Amino acid sequence: MRISELSRQSGVPVASIKYYLRKGLMPAGRAMGATLAEYGEEHVQRLRLIRALTTLGGLSIAAARDVLAEIDQPHDDPRGMLGVIHYALRTPADAGATGAEELTERVDSLVEAMDWDVSEASPHRLALAASLRELSRLGMDFGVDDLLPYATLAAAVARLDLDQIDGIEDRMALAERAAIITLLLEPVLALLRRLAQEGEARRRTAEAAAPHTA
Amino acid sequence: MRISELSRQSGVPVASIKYYLRKGLMPAGRAMGATLAEYGEEHVQRLRLIRALTTLGGLSIAAARDVLAEIDQPHDDPRGMLGVIHYALRTPADAGATGAEELTERVDSLVEAMDWDVSEASPHRLALAASLRELSRLGMDFGVDDLLPYATLAAAVARLDLDQIDGIEDRMALAERAAIITLLLEPVLALLRRLAQEGEARRRTAEAAAPHTA
Repeated sequence: MRISELSRQSGVPVASIKYYLRKGLMPAGRAMGATLAEYGEEHVQRLRLIRALTTLGGLSIAAARDVLAEIDQPHDDPRGMLGVIHYALRTPADAGATGAEELTERVDSLVEAMDWDVSEASPHRLALAASLRELSRLGMDFGVDDLLPYATLAAAVARLDLDQIDGIEDRMALAERAAIITLLLEPVLALLRRLAQEGEARRRTAEAAAPHTA
Repeated sequence: MRISELSRQSGVPVASIKYYLRKGLMPAGRAMGATLAEYGEEHVQRLRLIRALTTLGGLSIAAARDVLAEIDQPHDDPRGMLGVIHYALRTPADAGATGAEELTERVDSLVEAMDWDVSEASPHRLALAASLRELSRLGMDFGVDDLLPYATLAAAVARLDLDQIDGIEDRMALAERAAIITLLLEPVLALLRRLAQEGEARRRTAEAAAPHTA
């Protein structure tokens, strides 16, 4: 298909498509002449992924390019790729990730207590330490014992996540799926938590008002 | 204390403090003369909260002011306040929240299946619908049955969250704590999930490589 049809099918304006091509987020189409190129279904899918990463995922164009480059790499171990993609993705809390070294010990203890096999190089260790430091400064010191119940639930979420990519043989499809699950399920989980918080808060208020009725 | 001492104790530069005062994020100090004001411990605490909301929380100055204004309001029901604060906070996925009306029915079914008492006016309903639509566009259609296991875990997280503010009598302290838990625990949970994902991915890879050893 021509670029105009690609724009129609993907819902992405032609100017944006050209911009993504120029920035290297998307492979070029098959050249059909000096100024004409032919695009395929894979370009439609790629455009949808770019849009999802940059809008819902909140990634910059540069960050999206890094993630897509990672997805395009061949990987020996399909599941290990998840970790690589992870590290390319923005860290939710890297704004304050310096000077939190004193709390990384607590993170290390937690990872050990959960028996998680996590690379020493994972940027999420320091990011978590930074978040804990910030909470501690605000008077909420979360020790390992306070974090364990949350970590146990996170492990259960991770099992559901991995179930979503089990059995996918195609490496490209697997990488794409892994990025989508990690990045785009994050707001879904945050929203489910907020809805659940409101439900739980109202339930407790109702129970406090009428303690003798269940 | 004077503004210089407030700056020292809070770690926030004097220029930033003056900016927050001007923007109405913080109550003025007690006037001690034409150009002198006296600040107290509550100003130190407030500055820490402003920094946390705007750095780790990722809020704009305007959004932080809205949240703080909500915290400063008197509330009849301390727990209900959580919901009000919620709605003032940024929605993780509001970037694509238009045109997802067709998926709100799915969200409504989920909320009903979970027996969550959530206001019809909650902006998180539409935001969740928008996230689900985006996932569906990318080939991952999450129906109510797919979402239920995630929602069940979110409910467990919400119970832990509410436990953190149980027993706090002071309304101001409660509101502040609620905002911190909702907003600043979000990156913590996201990071725990990513660490858990890496652990789970490696565990499954190891099991697949050596299926006969446990």
